[in-house]
Amino acid sequence: MKLLRHGPMGQEKPGVLDAQGQVRDLSLLVSDWTPEWLAPERLAALRAIDLTQMPTVAPGTRLGVPVAGIRQFVAIGLNYRKHAQEAGLEIPKEPVVFTKALTSLAGPDDEVKLPPGSEAGDWEIELGFVIGTTARSVAVADALSHVAGYCLANDVSERDWQIKRGGQWGKGKSFDGFGPIGPWLVTTDELPDPQGIPLELSVNGEVRQRSNTSDMIFPVAEIVAHLSQFMTLLPGDVVITGTPEGVGLGIKPTPVFLRRGDVMTLSAGPLGTQRQQVV
Amino acid sequence: MKLLRHGPMGQEKPGVLDAQGQVRDLSLLVSDWTPEWLAPERLAALRAIDLTQMPTVAPGTRLGVPVAGIRQFVAIGLNYRKHAQEAGLEIPKEPVVFTKALTSLAGPDDEVKLPPGSEAGDWEIELGFVIGTTARSVAVADALSHVAGYCLANDVSERDWQIKRGGQWGKGKSFDGFGPIGPWLVTTDELPDPQGIPLELSVNGEVRQRSNTSDMIFPVAEIVAHLSQFMTLLPGDVVITGTPEGVGLGIKPTPVFLRRGDVMTLSAGPLGTQRQQVV
Repeated sequence: MKLLRHGPMGQEKPGVLDAQGQVRDLSLLVSDWTPEWLAPERLAALRAIDLTQMPTVAPGTRLGVPVAGIRQFVAIGLNYRKHAQEAGLEIPKEPVVFTKALTSLAGPDDEVKLPPGSEAGDWEIELGFVIGTTARSVAVADALSHVAGYCLANDVSERDWQIKRGGQWGKGKSFDGFGPIGPWLVTTDELPDPQGIPLELSVNGEVRQRSNTSDMIFPVAEIVAHLSQFMTLLPGDVVITGTPEGVGLGIKPTPVFLRRGDVMTLSAGPLGTQRQQVV
Repeated sequence: MKLLRHGPMGQEKPGVLDAQGQVRDLSLLVSDWTPEWLAPERLAALRAIDLTQMPTVAPGTRLGVPVAGIRQFVAIGLNYRKHAQEAGLEIPKEPVVFTKALTSLAGPDDEVKLPPGSEAGDWEIELGFVIGTTARSVAVADALSHVAGYCLANDVSERDWQIKRGGQWGKGKSFDGFGPIGPWLVTTDELPDPQGIPLELSVNGEVRQRSNTSDMIFPVAEIVAHLSQFMTLLPGDVVITGTPEGVGLGIKPTPVFLRRGDVMTLSAGPLGTQRQQVV
């Protein structure tokens, strides 16, 4: 299944993308894609619904964050070798973990608003995943069973706030709208292996990042197992898994940062596409 | 008002501490201390309730986290000069910001469970505050009007996980139960100035930390204003404001860490006391 939420910001309704690529509204059957809907048995029960009988949603309707009731938004840093190198940082021995504010979550095509005076906005295409069942001290072998599905994410970053404003990266990652997620959540029955997904991000049509999740240093299973050693992951928690090389900060000899009017386009095979205008 | 929540873990009911120091149950009037109850007009309306007519709660009843529906749990680091010195780190020019997992929240007297193999558990008494109204890019002069009240907190920390496990402090701060909050939230009508609160923490009866929030480098108003520049603070968000000197890591010549069986006791004047057994 490809779960999504459609409608104006703050008024999204639950839906799915059907096999023909048509958005179907499910709000007559489901109140919203809240955490309890992400349990394996609930997701399996959804397959009993004949989607062809559900109302279609007008093409062009805005899509929001694909799940509701997210409680924790966790991010992994430096999870691709070449990105660690372009950032001038060591290859980590364990996953580098930070968080983004919940209020940074946004729909896949919402505008990205740079904060006042920002001159160092940057892009980071990433694989995201959403937790389906509570994970506490789980083993790598069991880890993927706690994942409900996968989604595309842009870990929009303001490098001056991230690096120059007093340590700990969350500061540059937490502005409103700096966490576009979606367009949909591909559940694990449809996408059991998250480590072969192509990632490509362009700015104004110029390809800046092109990689594949097969190049991640710590794959999803290891990330889930590691996080669950020091925090409890709850259904609905979103984790984004680090970006490959090609961010603006890494461009030589002079970094290239986002300017108002720029357009970021992201694609990730079955996870769909995003398009954000910078304002 | 001193807002609190009483009852077994996960089944807490809302209450208040009355002027005689008696816990009164308010669950017949209030479903829970959810974020919408923290707005100034809602808190003001509570004063119309004659507490002497509300049921008393048996002494010794467990108290939980004093507010419900918390969405973000933010922490400030190195906010007392002598603590930055004992940690061997520079006095920050701007607040150092990190986060604790929501799942680390605990009641004021709940047991603190060290993770398997932990040999570097540590204590950090702190002033906490809870946001009452959404704060986005607010000025220092307006900042305190967005605060609903103040509470005592222990930013329990595992130094090996914080420092040696791949950067970004949240790893050592996010274990279940590592964020005891309470016993109550003192609303700002009763405590308008948060910068004169005594803080004292003992381990097994030996005083380890003794300070006053008047020594904070960045007072609460500056913290709120600063955070609100790069993230939106929501009603119910909890922010803890950094610890003074005297943590176990800073003890010379050899750091002293928590051992199973230790008892931490914390006090902070009108904010009340906490007592946690380490298991």
